[in-house]
Amino acid sequence: MTTSTYTVTGMTCQHCVGAVREELGRLPGVSDVTVDLDSGQVTVTSTDPLSTDDVRAMVDEAGYALAS
Amino acid sequence: MTTSTYTVTGMTCQHCVGAVREELGRLPGVSDVTVDLDSGQVTVTSTDPLSTDDVRAMVDEAGYALAS
Repeated sequence: MTTSTYTVTGMTCQHCVGAVREELGRLPGVSDVTVDLDSGQVTVTSTDPLSTDDVRAMVDEAGYALAS
Repeated sequence: MTTSTYTVTGMTCQHCVGAVREELGRLPGVSDVTVDLDSGQVTVTSTDPLSTDDVRAMVDEAGYALAS
């Protein structure tokens, strides 16, 4: 099990949090996504390490951006 | 047909706009809801005049507030 933390910019409300959680939850092997709206910190738990490009693509898909 | 404009506080993104539109669209006779996110102005078109209490209740339900 791997846990990684990312910073996502642009989330302003709990609907945004839900959109990010939903998209990241679609990545294979992801079992948990925790989002802290105030800080933009997103913690993803997965069976194997995730590709940052995949995470970035899903965050983009939700309408937000991964801080570099 | 009646058109009324309200000011809704607390909306921060297009998800918030969607939530407000969805709830107000449930009021009987409502045919259109237009939301301007920047100003918080919400314009509701309905067959008959709406009760402000009903509008307020739906905005509350969506998680936002009607400016007094």
